Amino acid sequence: MSKQELVVLGQDESSCCPTLLAAPLDQEQSVELAKVFKALGDPVRLRLLSMIASREGGEVCVCDLTPAFDLSQPTISHHLKLLRQAGLIDCERRGTWVYYWLLPGTIDKLAGVLTRSGRPATSEASA
Amino acid sequence: MSKQELVVLGQDESSCCPTLLAAPLDQEQSVELAKVFKALGDPVRLRLLSMIASREGGEVCVCDLTPAFDLSQPTISHHLKLLRQAGLIDCERRGTWVYYWLLPGTIDKLAGVLTRSGRPATSEASA
Repeated sequence: MSKQELVVLGQDESSCCPTLLAAPLDQEQSVELAKVFKALGDPVRLRLLSMIASREGGEVCVCDLTPAFDLSQPTISHHLKLLRQAGLIDCERRGTWVYYWLLPGTIDKLAGVLTRSGRPATSEASA
Repeated sequence: MSKQELVVLGQDESSCCPTLLAAPLDQEQSVELAKVFKALGDPVRLRLLSMIASREGGEVCVCDLTPAFDLSQPTISHHLKLLRQAGLIDCERRGTWVYYWLLPGTIDKLAGVLTRSGRPATSEASA
């Protein structure tokens, strides 16, 4: 594939949503996206993210996350920091504890990037 | 969050589509999903995947992939192997060259996992 065929999409839409499946990503887009996918490429971080994302009320105390894992608090905090650096979650300290919540924009962007044209992704999508 | 609150979804649907955002993933689901996200967590692999996925006709000769990168053929082949092991692409040798194509089931599954309930993901999703 020649370089002339590379098409950059979405750069005028507040740098939203390159289309992984509709046109080849350029280098800059791929570096940015890879950071987020790398943050998701770990089972502990995926479980932490899903615990945070699915929590009724929208936020979770770190004190409610740690007991689900056979890992030390610093290890859990490190994984949470990587999720935060990837823009997937944010947090706030209140008194003794830190509270975490999902940043839906990043998740929506990833879902868009992975959704094939004309095919809305749903949780019922079959393999 | 207590362990009693952990809900396993989708296991009777041909192990399709755990819902990352609607309920906490269990350990097995998170290990399986993390492998695929890890495969996407590299800029070269993301670009290769998007070149394959967006190719008119549905398949790409490795001879058309390699020239887009300042990397050796064995390095490109290694990245392609990791994408294949993650179930994202498949390939076939024909004569001198190997041809690659997207396995849409895995991509659809990931898109479903990342799509928030009631919100179809589109490439126009804004952050």
